[in-house]
Amino acid sequence: MDRPDIPPDVVIRRLPLYARSLRYLIDEGVLSVSSQELGERINVTAAQIRKDLSYFGEFGKQGIGYDVEKLLAHIERILGLTHSWPVVLIGVGHLGQAIARYEGFHSKGLQIVGLFDTDPAKIGQTVAEVLIRDYAEIQGVIREHQVRLAIIAVPASFAQSVADTLIDAGVRAILNYAPIVLQAPEDVWVRNIDPVAVMHSMTYYLAREG
Amino acid sequence: MDRPDIPPDVVIRRLPLYARSLRYLIDEGVLSVSSQELGERINVTAAQIRKDLSYFGEFGKQGIGYDVEKLLAHIERILGLTHSWPVVLIGVGHLGQAIARYEGFHSKGLQIVGLFDTDPAKIGQTVAEVLIRDYAEIQGVIREHQVRLAIIAVPASFAQSVADTLIDAGVRAILNYAPIVLQAPEDVWVRNIDPVAVMHSMTYYLAREG
Repeated sequence: MDRPDIPPDVVIRRLPLYARSLRYLIDEGVLSVSSQELGERINVTAAQIRKDLSYFGEFGKQGIGYDVEKLLAHIERILGLTHSWPVVLIGVGHLGQAIARYEGFHSKGLQIVGLFDTDPAKIGQTVAEVLIRDYAEIQGVIREHQVRLAIIAVPASFAQSVADTLIDAGVRAILNYAPIVLQAPEDVWVRNIDPVAVMHSMTYYLAREG
Repeated sequence: MDRPDIPPDVVIRRLPLYARSLRYLIDEGVLSVSSQELGERINVTAAQIRKDLSYFGEFGKQGIGYDVEKLLAHIERILGLTHSWPVVLIGVGHLGQAIARYEGFHSKGLQIVGLFDTDPAKIGQTVAEVLIRDYAEIQGVIREHQVRLAIIAVPASFAQSVADTLIDAGVRAILNYAPIVLQAPEDVWVRNIDPVAVMHSMTYYLAREG
């Protein structure tokens, strides 16, 4: 089977799900897993898993399955998670605070190094032991820590201006919670967390069921 | 051009973004919009917009563009947003509270009718004027209000059990914030909000940029 060089984005988006399932398996003390078993955990076929992984090399042995720890280490290497990425979070309202407290964000590979807001009542406080700083300082912090990743949790009307400021200082990937489609240069990755849009895509199907 | 009968899911997922952009245009007092202008707001080509909308009928006129209010009304009808859908939210921790307070969820078409938790200290309190009830009551509330939509914001270890309970009572669409892939029957829609997985898919690309 030919191995294409560039894995499609949909494959890249599945890799973190594989990694998380493998971490659960390690917690459960499982040492080896078949593509069938791994697939059942994330609703993907065994064939799909084998195809996805084939972009990155040869894994597992026919009839034996994957060594869980080795496969996890390999996927984490592929995802660039062998070192920790500093992250800034802008907007410390209810949502921003929930994100800052979310343990998942302190998991392997991601470290929130700064929270930023413009509200004087919030600046100087801490959330989950991270200091809330004045948004006016953000470009300095991004440059100092060489931050490439940012989370935007400000109201929609401020989000584009914040994105422009972040990108100007060197941010290259943005997780955007504001309900607006951000404009960004082609070399900047923007992914949106948009629960209302997702809900509305489900009401479409429910409405059809009558 | 032939009009296929079943629009792909990727088209359904874009419709809420079109709807939101059209609402912004109405707020700005714009009455008419070209597919070009609409596309620029959501990083989609004019051709893609025309193709997406062609699944649902004939819209706009060559050289004149779309009537903003009419197109919005039509898309809302397609998405089943002409009436309000009752929604239950399970798990009123920091994340659940942020979701309950999020104004977007109280926008057209979605109404959170109940918050549920197992923590006696939370039960009886309100968030954004919605009562937090005992999780033990949830199946009764779902049946009483004929709830089809639910939001899960509980820890990963409880999420599957909660999903099973919801589905058993009649829920047919779940927005899942827990970092786990839920197992559900084929006639139940499950969509995941998974910010860490999204971040990890971006570190993949950043790691490659060196």
